[in-house]
Order: sequence, then structure tokens, then C-alpha cells
Amino acid sequence: MLKSKIIYLDYASATPIDKRVIATMNVIFKKYYANPSAIHELGVKTSKLVEDSRKNIADILGAQNSEIIFTGGATENNNLAILGVLEKSKNFFSKPHIVTTNIEHPSVMEVCKYLEKTKQAEVTYVSVEEDGVIDPRKIQKALKPNTVLVSVMYANNEIGTIQPIKEIAKEIRHFRKKQEKQKDFLRSSVLLAQDVSSGDESSARPFKNLFVFPVFYTDATQAINYLPINVLKLGVDMLSFNGDKIYGPKDVGVLYVKKNVPLGKIMFGGNQEFGIRPGTENTASIVGLVEALKIAEKIKEKESERLVKLRNYFIKKILSQNSDIEINGGMEKRLPNNVNITIPKLPSDLIVIELSARGIYISEKSACKSGERKGSYVIKAICPTSDASQTASGFENGSLRFSLGRETSKVDVDYTIKSLKEILKKLKKWYD
Amino acid sequence: MLKSKIIYLDYASATPIDKRVIATMNVIFKKYYANPSAIHELGVKTSKLVEDSRKNIADILGAQNSEIIFTGGATENNNLAILGVLEKSKNFFSKPHIVTTNIEHPSVMEVCKYLEKTKQAEVTYVSVEEDGVIDPRKIQKALKPNTVLVSVMYANNEIGTIQPIKEIAKEIRHFRKKQEKQKDFLRSSVLLAQDVSSGDESSARPFKNLFVFPVFYTDATQAINYLPINVLKLGVDMLSFNGDKIYGPKDVGVLYVKKNVPLGKIMFGGNQEFGIRPGTENTASIVGLVEALKIAEKIKEKESERLVKLRNYFIKKILSQNSDIEINGGMEKRLPNNVNITIPKLPSDLIVIELSARGIYISEKSACKSGERKGSYVIKAICPTSDASQTASGFENGSLRFSLGRETSKVDVDYTIKSLKEILKKLKKWYD
Repeated sequence: MLKSKIIYLDYASATPIDKRVIATMNVIFKKYYANPSAIHELGVKTSKLVEDSRKNIADILGAQNSEIIFTGGATENNNLAILGVLEKSKNFFSKPHIVTTNIEHPSVMEVCKYLEKTKQAEVTYVSVEEDGVIDPRKIQKALKPNTVLVSVMYANNEIGTIQPIKEIAKEIRHFRKKQEKQKDFLRSSVLLAQDVSSGDESSARPFKNLFVFPVFYTDATQAINYLPINVLKLGVDMLSFNGDKIYGPKDVGVLYVKKNVPLGKIMFGGNQEFGIRPGTENTASIVGLVEALKIAEKIKEKESERLVKLRNYFIKKILSQNSDIEINGGMEKRLPNNVNITIPKLPSDLIVIELSARGIYISEKSACKSGERKGSYVIKAICPTSDASQTASGFENGSLRFSLGRETSKVDVDYTIKSLKEILKKLKKWYD
Repeated sequence: MLKSKIIYLDYASATPIDKRVIATMNVIFKKYYANPSAIHELGVKTSKLVEDSRKNIADILGAQNSEIIFTGGATENNNLAILGVLEKSKNFFSKPHIVTTNIEHPSVMEVCKYLEKTKQAEVTYVSVEEDGVIDPRKIQKALKPNTVLVSVMYANNEIGTIQPIKEIAKEIRHFRKKQEKQKDFLRSSVLLAQDVSSGDESSARPFKNLFVFPVFYTDATQAINYLPINVLKLGVDMLSFNGDKIYGPKDVGVLYVKKNVPLGKIMFGGNQEFGIRPGTENTASIVGLVEALKIAEKIKEKESERLVKLRNYFIKKILSQNSDIEINGGMEKRLPNNVNITIPKLPSDLIVIELSARGIYISEKSACKSGERKGSYVIKAICPTSDASQTASGFENGSLRFSLGRETSKVDVDYTIKSLKEILKKLKKWYD
């Protein structure tokens, strides 16, 4: 397989690592292998690299150093954020309530389902609108006195729709102000303040003020490359991302946790990461992540502009060639690199494999329910009639995700569209 | 700081990454960055690398592929093993009981303390003998009908003592046979078999037979470089290690879970790792870990012999020069690379820093209780009189750990002993 023939259009699934990041990681591999907890010179130097990285991330997010927790990646971020808040909230609510949406990442969905199944929490899944965007008023309406957490992703991984995080944050702030006026709530706040200062693991972070539930968390994994990430401007209490989607190392994530937010832990051990996330720090990946984030921030505006143009060109051309193809998700609030389409009456996995044979790598989410495979709940959420679209051949209309990236050129897009045309022509003969 | 002047004697804390492993990881970084879940060619190739790695690990351990779970490292291993077994055992025991020792790694200790604190389990901490080795009969005596897990580390991280894993496994097998004869227990076994085949997350692994509690788990993180790791010969049900201690990548671990062992999960999300450990697989680190393990296996015997000689030379020389120095832990059942000593009446952190200034990097565990710092519970466990040894200057007798490794030569050892002599001479003047 010649490298020149590869057209990688699966950047939302995983990005290649930037060469500069690899070079940096190699320096750490060779020179700074010590345990950052060691008190000898090499340990101190390694620890300083981790702490400098923390400061760099904090500066980029508009946060304080002590608000940045390094983790093992996106799945751990979502687990730690949700289970961590729930753990602490149990002290004050006999039946904690979580508000989320019906298009969150599987790791958010699975944590919520687990909490429901084990009766640890009640969960409201706010339905997305047909354009793939959440209405902030629907979030507001879902809030209850026992709501401890609102978890809404910043941008969707399948259809790339961007959620109104600022507006949701505003609704939550209003709700909290109302809550604060209630006596009952103030009592819990005092209890909470006692809890966080009682010498347990969380007290390593500087808790000075009371925190009023609910906590607002956003999974920014897909958004971080293209959208603003200043946590103060966004108004979020927690935000997370990882290296795997920003041309960085795969095994490292960041969870921003605003001071005073009560967060328990999901793993136990050493006192690393302010006592919230134990385990020897992964220095090379942490330093690599910072470099990847810096590069992403530097080119964010220009690259977003370039990709919006390229994506719009892609979509325009694909629609002009195929009258039956539909774009999933609205065009307005959409990540610059996301093209998600439905091609009716053809199995999407077959199209992915045909494209792959031509060196074009994309992702599929089929709404197919035949056999063992499960369809996309995201596509179902924006397309309530999809159940009706099942064909005689036993599969539903699938979806294809083309996610563009730094290496994607107009030539790649043209070749992809040309190839797709050939493939559809061929497959339609079989399936007609 | 000239590299030639560094004498790194902190291999038990973290190993440098082998150059061959770094080279391999760089190939993965550049070529196999796709998400192993993707169905296009690059995804399939990446997935194959992960699965080949699993097979390689399984072959080395004498296990089956489906018994190997890749994780994020040693702390996660210990958390997943203990919390995972406990989660499943709750279905059958109203008050599960765990047997462990008083010299386990902090991540095992902290998980156990958490379970005790939250009243989820009762824990027995079997006391180590004065030579730092656990008596298998004491483990056997601690077993109860509601014991669901026995967790004993293979070799201790501080004093390097090797635990009689085979013998403990034998005691547990005898106990299980007795248990099997009891009607009550058989009833739970049947329930358990129903549970694991009921379509929940664990059913992705091939459970065919009943499993009889307790599960026997060993944390082999420190042992893996030097001791036999065939899981069948050891007789363990679960075993774990990571890359960080075998000259491999820092952020990846392996948990061997014998088929039929009921294991819940601690994080929720995708169906990776047989549904037990969600999150995109960390391909570069997984492949790097396999290469590191292969190298370790290949040189295990020779390197162990070399280090035993070097370690014995080190100890002999250090004792001959300083009559008041004591070796912590017995000499017979001890990792080839571990030298742990107590130097009475001197603060161990100061010695570490003095050595560091001379380019010698070692680790300390002080039994000091002054100020915020906590002493070593391992040293306390083997030295019950240590409380009495507190000096007028406010600190207890500390301990120093010199852990040798692949780059350690006799010249390094000589230079270290010479430097230590100078430092002790200087410090004794101050503290006398």
C-alpha cells in the first residue's frame, strides 16, 4: 500500500500524531523517564515538566493550575466527571438527578445507564432537535431541585453539531441563583463545605467557597480543535478533552475541574493530581499533549476557515451528484471538518469497505438492526422516522462520516467524490 | 549535567524506555494512528497489531488471548482487579471479605481502605514476617466462607521481598475444594453462572464453567523483570504488570484474568477489551509493552544472575563500611535488584538529596512522622520496634532504596558506596 494513495478522512475517530509532538515525546522518553514523585534531581526535573504542562493547559483554558487534572483519556474523563460528581453529591441528595442529552458519547451514555440500572441516580435524556442541536430551554426545563449534574457535549462526534454551551451555562446559573435562595439548599451547601474541608482526598484542592449544584460538565473532545475553549467565557464547571483528537498522544486526557466543584474519585492509590487521579504521571504524553494543544490553538482560526470551505465544497458537490443523499445534522452549527451523510437503501459498511479498497478511510454508523450490530442512536435521534425506512433487504438507511483534517486537500475531496460515485453506481446495480 | 555522570539507581520507581521499544513506538505513531475500531483498512491493520500483541502477551504468560486485558497502568490494574471482583461478588455475598497483606502497594491499600470505609467489604491485612515475606499458612487461616478475593503482591516495591505465590495459590485451591462441597456455596456458583451468561458486559468473555470464590490476584509489577510469570505454574487467577517497570511505555498495563473469573468494570463506555475496559486502545504503547516484555523475558535469567552478584557485592561492601547500617528484608527471597537499608539517626531525605547532588539517583522511604510526611508502612511492618527508634531530633530511622537495573555497573556501585561514605561522614558531624 503506497502512502501517497491514502486519503485519511477519519480524523474524528483518531488523528495522526503531529511530527513535532513525536519529536518532543522522544526527548522525554530518553531524558525524563524518572518518576515525578522521586525527590532526586531527575525526579524533580520530570515533575517540573508535568507542572509546567499543567500551567500551560491552565493558561490556554483560562483556568488555574489546581483546576487541571491529567487523566488517561476521553473515556476516563467522562467516567471521572460523572461518577466523581455523583459520589460527592450522594452526601446531600438521597436521589441525585442527572440531566444529559440523547446524543452524548457512548462513555457518557453508558455511565448514565449504569447509574440508572443500579438506582444510584435518575437521568433525564433531553432530546436533540432535528438539526442535531440541543435547545437550552429544554435543558432548563429538565432541571430539578435534586439535579446534581448537567452533562452536554460541546460538539457531537458523529454529526459534528455544536451545542450552545454558553447558553446552557447561563440557564444553569439562573437556576442555581434560584436554588441558593432556598433554605434547604443552603443547608446542603454548608454540609458540602464541611465535607470538602474534612481532610478527605479532595481537600488537596483549594476549596474556599460553597458550591451550588448542579455542576455543568461539557465533553469537549471533538470541539477542542476548532471552537473557543476559554472555560470562563463558556461558563462551564468542568470540561474535558484528550490528545487523540488533537494530533497528540492517544493515552492522555485533561479534565478541567473548577475550584470548589466537589469531585470524588474512581480509582484509589497515590496522591497524584491533587488526590483526584492516582498513578504515576505519564510525563511524555502530558508534555506531548501540551504541544499538540498549543499547535491546535495557533492554527485554530485559519484551519477552521480552510476546512469550512473545503467541507462546504464537499457537501455541495456530493449533493449535486446524488439527489437522494441527505446531510445529517444542520449546516449552521457544525464542526468545520464534519460531513455526515445518509445514502438510502445501501449498506453503509459496504461503502466504507469499497472506499477503503481505494485507499480512502472514512467511518460508518449504520442504523442497521439486523444481526448483532447496533445502529447509531445519534442518527436515530435527529431522524425519528428512520425506523420506517427499513428496506426489504433487511437494513436501514446507514450513515457515513467523512471527517477532514490537516492533511486533507481539495484533490483528496475530489478523488473521494469521484470514487464514491463509482461505488454507488456499482452497488446500486446489486441492490436495486 | 553531563549524562556520563548520572548513576540512576531508581529502577524500581521507573525504568528508562528501551531504545528498541522507542523505535517501535515511533513506527506506530507514524503509520498506525487509526482507531482500532474503524472498519477501514488502516483500522483493521491497527486492530490486528493490538490483537497480535494480546496473543504475544498470552503466550508469554501461558494464558489465552481472551484472558488478557490491556489497561492504563499499575494503579488501574489494582483498582480494576479488586473493585471488579468485589462488584460481581456482591451478587452472592452480603458482606464480602478480602484478604490481603500489610505491605501491598498503596493503590491496593487505598482501594481496600475505601471499601472498608464505605462498608462494602471487610478486609483482613495479614502481617508480613520480619524478613518481609508472608507466611502462606497465615493467608490460609484468614480465609472465610465469605472471602471473595485474596490479593498478595508478587514482590514488594520497597524492600524487594518475594512472596510465596505458588504456595498461597495452593492453600486457596484447597480451601476452594472444601467450599465446593458445601451446598450453600454451590447455590451461589449456579447464580454466578447465570449472572455471567445473562447478557451483561462480562458475557463477551467465554465463561463456560462455574467459578468458586475466592479469586487469587497478584500484583506482579515489581516481579515481572526477574521472576517466572507463567500464570498456570503460579496458580493465580489474576496477575498484573505495567510497562513502566520493564523498560517499556509508562501508560499501559496488563491484567490477566483467568476465564470464568467474574470481573465487573470500573469505567463505562465502548466494548473494547471484551467489554471490561472501555476506551480507544493505545496501540503504540500496547505494541511497545509487548516488545519490552519480550526483551525482559529474553534476558531475564542472565540479567537476574548479574544483578544478584552486583547486589550482594553492594550489600557486603556497604555493611563492611558501616557497622550501624541494617538491611531491610531478608536476603534469600529478594528481587535481584533491590537494596533497602536503614541508616540510624540520619534523615533519609537529606541523604537522597546529597546523593542526587553527586549525580546518584535513589529513592527514600522515611519512617519519619514529623510534619506532614508519612513514613513507610512497609518498613514499619517488618520492624515492629521502629516506633521506639525515634531520635531526639524528631525523626525516625529512615530507609533508602537503591534499585539496580540494566545500565548499572560495578563502577557505579563503587562510586555510590564511596559517595555514601562521604555523605554519612559529613551528616554524622551535623547530627551527632
